[in-house]
Amino acid sequence: MNARLFFAVFLSAGLGTLVAQPFRVEPPNWWAGMQDTSLQLLIHGADAGALELSVSGTGVVLLGTHPADSPNYLFADLSIRPDATPGTVTLTFRRDGQPVAEQPYELRPRERPADQVEGFDASDVIYLITPDRFANGDPENDLVDTLRETALDRAAGFARHGGDLRGITDHLDYIDSMGFTAIWPSPVLENNMPAWSYHGYAITDYYAVDPRFGTLADYRELADAARTRGIKLIMDQVVNHSGSGHWWMDDLPFDNWLNYQDDPKMTNHRRSIHQDPYAARVDAERMTGGWFVSTMPDLNQRNPFLARYLIQNSLWWIETLGLGGVRQDTYPYPDADFLTGWTCRIMQEYPNFSIVGEEWSYNPATVAYWQRGKENPDGYVSCLPSVMDFPLQAALMSAFKEQEGWDSGLIKLYEALSNDYQYAEPRDLMVFAENHDMDRLATQLAGRVDHVRMALTYLLTVRGIPQLYYGSEVLLDNDEAPGDHGVIRSDMPGGWGGDRVNAFTGAGLSPDQVAVQGHLRRLLQWRKDHPVIATGRTLHYAPEDGTYVYGRYDENERVMVVLNKNDAPVTLDPERYRELIAGATTATPIDGPAQNIAAGLTVPASSGAVFVLR
Amino acid sequence: MNARLFFAVFLSAGLGTLVAQPFRVEPPNWWAGMQDTSLQLLIHGADAGALELSVSGTGVVLLGTHPADSPNYLFADLSIRPDATPGTVTLTFRRDGQPVAEQPYELRPRERPADQVEGFDASDVIYLITPDRFANGDPENDLVDTLRETALDRAAGFARHGGDLRGITDHLDYIDSMGFTAIWPSPVLENNMPAWSYHGYAITDYYAVDPRFGTLADYRELADAARTRGIKLIMDQVVNHSGSGHWWMDDLPFDNWLNYQDDPKMTNHRRSIHQDPYAARVDAERMTGGWFVSTMPDLNQRNPFLARYLIQNSLWWIETLGLGGVRQDTYPYPDADFLTGWTCRIMQEYPNFSIVGEEWSYNPATVAYWQRGKENPDGYVSCLPSVMDFPLQAALMSAFKEQEGWDSGLIKLYEALSNDYQYAEPRDLMVFAENHDMDRLATQLAGRVDHVRMALTYLLTVRGIPQLYYGSEVLLDNDEAPGDHGVIRSDMPGGWGGDRVNAFTGAGLSPDQVAVQGHLRRLLQWRKDHPVIATGRTLHYAPEDGTYVYGRYDENERVMVVLNKNDAPVTLDPERYRELIAGATTATPIDGPAQNIAAGLTVPASSGAVFVLR
Repeated sequence: MNARLFFAVFLSAGLGTLVAQPFRVEPPNWWAGMQDTSLQLLIHGADAGALELSVSGTGVVLLGTHPADSPNYLFADLSIRPDATPGTVTLTFRRDGQPVAEQPYELRPRERPADQVEGFDASDVIYLITPDRFANGDPENDLVDTLRETALDRAAGFARHGGDLRGITDHLDYIDSMGFTAIWPSPVLENNMPAWSYHGYAITDYYAVDPRFGTLADYRELADAARTRGIKLIMDQVVNHSGSGHWWMDDLPFDNWLNYQDDPKMTNHRRSIHQDPYAARVDAERMTGGWFVSTMPDLNQRNPFLARYLIQNSLWWIETLGLGGVRQDTYPYPDADFLTGWTCRIMQEYPNFSIVGEEWSYNPATVAYWQRGKENPDGYVSCLPSVMDFPLQAALMSAFKEQEGWDSGLIKLYEALSNDYQYAEPRDLMVFAENHDMDRLATQLAGRVDHVRMALTYLLTVRGIPQLYYGSEVLLDNDEAPGDHGVIRSDMPGGWGGDRVNAFTGAGLSPDQVAVQGHLRRLLQWRKDHPVIATGRTLHYAPEDGTYVYGRYDENERVMVVLNKNDAPVTLDPERYRELIAGATTATPIDGPAQNIAAGLTVPASSGAVFVLR
Repeated sequence: MNARLFFAVFLSAGLGTLVAQPFRVEPPNWWAGMQDTSLQLLIHGADAGALELSVSGTGVVLLGTHPADSPNYLFADLSIRPDATPGTVTLTFRRDGQPVAEQPYELRPRERPADQVEGFDASDVIYLITPDRFANGDPENDLVDTLRETALDRAAGFARHGGDLRGITDHLDYIDSMGFTAIWPSPVLENNMPAWSYHGYAITDYYAVDPRFGTLADYRELADAARTRGIKLIMDQVVNHSGSGHWWMDDLPFDNWLNYQDDPKMTNHRRSIHQDPYAARVDAERMTGGWFVSTMPDLNQRNPFLARYLIQNSLWWIETLGLGGVRQDTYPYPDADFLTGWTCRIMQEYPNFSIVGEEWSYNPATVAYWQRGKENPDGYVSCLPSVMDFPLQAALMSAFKEQEGWDSGLIKLYEALSNDYQYAEPRDLMVFAENHDMDRLATQLAGRVDHVRMALTYLLTVRGIPQLYYGSEVLLDNDEAPGDHGVIRSDMPGGWGGDRVNAFTGAGLSPDQVAVQGHLRRLLQWRKDHPVIATGRTLHYAPEDGTYVYGRYDENERVMVVLNKNDAPVTLDPERYRELIAGATTATPIDGPAQNIAAGLTVPASSGAVFVLR
């Protein structure tokens, strides 16, 4: 049941006469037995700021209330003591001593121990999905009358296409059969925006699923169905900004709820201010305070009530869905100290959880700055387990797009990896060749199917947590519109009734599509059986003659990966690779007969080979 | 007097009959009162390894001797105790108990307290000179019969041109009048190579000045004359490799004196192996052990006798010349642990000295790795005070070569400086736009005199120790031969008798040449009077509208620098720069009338302005 709906029903059933209009209370519920016993409620309604609140419930204590700048908000600090039992607490609101409303507030039992809420790690492979474009499981919800956007047009990149949560749930078998172990749908919370709402990054209600994607029950069903298959559900969260259609925009709680609240200014995007010892304050303020775009008001997380609100919202979704991870959008744009509090609070509550932050920088030092465990010169502390490895993404593309040379081609991969000493934990980096903001892999690699295959081989064998983008397994491209997000996020073939081509069943796929999909499936399945890829150490060799060789090894297994960019097969002299080969005598590729190492390892033209050494 | 000559004279005068042939003893002398009391002598001569050595002299104790793999070497460990007095020690060599030679060994008094041997710092500006190409002070020594090279041809880039130490000494007044406070001549030690000897990096005797550059006395005269003018002499040292014409190549002391001694292999130049946590041993060995070029045998500093030899050699030159700094060539190529020992030993002996290392990397993390005080993840410790800021060099060129754009042009300077948090001490970095291995500044900037002027303004006002290259003040270029070292290192106009153009006197210079030389001179003189540039803090603003603004400030002074790349003047809104302007009301450019800040600071088209704020 939708949490909001739950209250509406409850209220109308039990408190009808007393309540003129129920107050909005967020979070809409909480749990008994959380690590942190504090809870702050946002209460919104006419003249809520003048309310006197009392709370009844075992182990639940009202510590105090705070009015806001708007008269219509009240913030209430509660302590949910360890002896609090699940059940319904009653919030009683009085005005001038007279009761005006009673509202039940549910303290739920936790569904699972916090340490069993497990995040993704390098044993996982993540499938990034744009929900509007993946599969239309419920054609009834493609447009919703109560929401502003009216554009529904599969032929238009900016419009809604109808994909939804049900569509993802319906295709979990496909995702599972491919071998993915985690899914990252881009945001599915309400985006009640007049246009361009399909992408989900302009959230207008942090506690509501967008009806065009489904209901909270659908979201829970997806989470549960995924969990049943061993697939982790990663939630894409956005604390930097909301959509301009957010409900609170008509009545902001505080004068500083937004940055540049009265006179919006755009961000300067100069993300280096976080590390820059010389940055001018005016630039730093513009960077984190400036709006991402004019339709996305920039939230001021330095307001402690907003900070608390956002942290509790994240915890609420993790607990409600039993998430397998969180992805945080535009990581260097919110207040950095807030991010420390946000990440540390989450990781304190769920010690085995994982969060990945998006720092779109090609400078490894910048990316490394945000990761948990990094000792920064300025003392900045983060609890963020994972960061997106944009430097490696750029290197991977350069490796294939550039001709081989002293300082071009595969050497870019070698040199990118050599920077790993800057990271606190390179194995926790998210590695990828593309995402929803970039040209499709096939487009970046100019349609070179051999290079696409090699890039996939690399991603699935290098250290880190691989992330792939839906549809690239069947070579979706955006050749006709480079850089066009609407085309990059094109529909998954087979996700809509009547699709001529169906990536899920294989119907209508070209031989190249079938081959790449099969190649990826084999890699994914193989990777599951070889934990050395997730947890092993790395050893690599400076590229020579258009060939890059690296290994993953631990006490149990040794794997050798060869990327051969040449138009001809190469045969490797085992002597050079003795440190990796160690005592092995045979090398067995993923699909092919074992080779005798002493005779020289042969790798076909323009291909990647993954050998298990024995 | 040349140190070698000193002994030859001494020996022939005093020990004639006993000595069949004198032994080569290196270092050729030492000093009483050094911080480190140990000294290891290399003794070379027929069957020297079988000699029995005794040493007489107050406070001088022979601790032991070591034979080498070659029978013709003996290494002797001495202790020069604090009570040792300057004077002549006698080395007595016996064979089977019978004296075969006596050699005097001089312990000199130190000419100055070790803490008065001061290195360069950011208060200095360094003038890099290629001695063969700067000025021919002594035409008599242009070629020397006893040395192999016979090519003397000013029209040939590879040949010797005749420049020498006397030529530099003769023009110290010019260097001083410009405002440089340090000179860095590329190496002047013997390069007895059959060809390409002019550059000096193929040393064939670590204790001999190349006669074509002059004598040890000339070198000392240069050092003294420079010191008198307050100009520091920086010595360019090369511990990575010698020239193949080195005297010891016919009789190497040890089987491991060189890397790949019996089967030379070239280096792979993969400098990232030092930081790379995954580097294969075979690549690491090839990197530091491989030869730089086939005519430069790669020294194996892991041999403790060679390590000691090289460290003592550096100390010998610092003490002999009273140097104002050392520049170490190809810094990541010698053994890294040796470099720790070498830098720490020097800095221990001369706590106020300075050394700069050449790490030609555009990755600030890589450059930062080598600097003193950097806390490296692998625990690597360095005592190297200064590193060349190649990342900033590249950014400076990009800033002018690229059109202004979101991610191009001046933003490159802003972002490069934002990386300073990675350095232990950014103010100790050497900053430059060019050196002897790069295209001339005027060539890099495609002849744009306005950009050359702005680049010079930048170098002389940014944090760090500026280094300029001789001749660029009069716009020397290598347009006709990009990348050609022989042309990059072209003759300084006026350095040779009969030169039609004379940069020293100004005769024959074009208006552009006069203007740039004057611009630089004004900047250099101004910089001397404004120590805030050397020691102050930095504040900078994200470039906007083709204009980059930064400041240098301390408790005494505030300087504002504006680089305006536009084709039109710009007027700055003081409001944006309030943090830098603080309470100042006027801005006084280097040469021009003070401006009223409140009215908006105006900077002419395509120029850099340096304002003192008051």
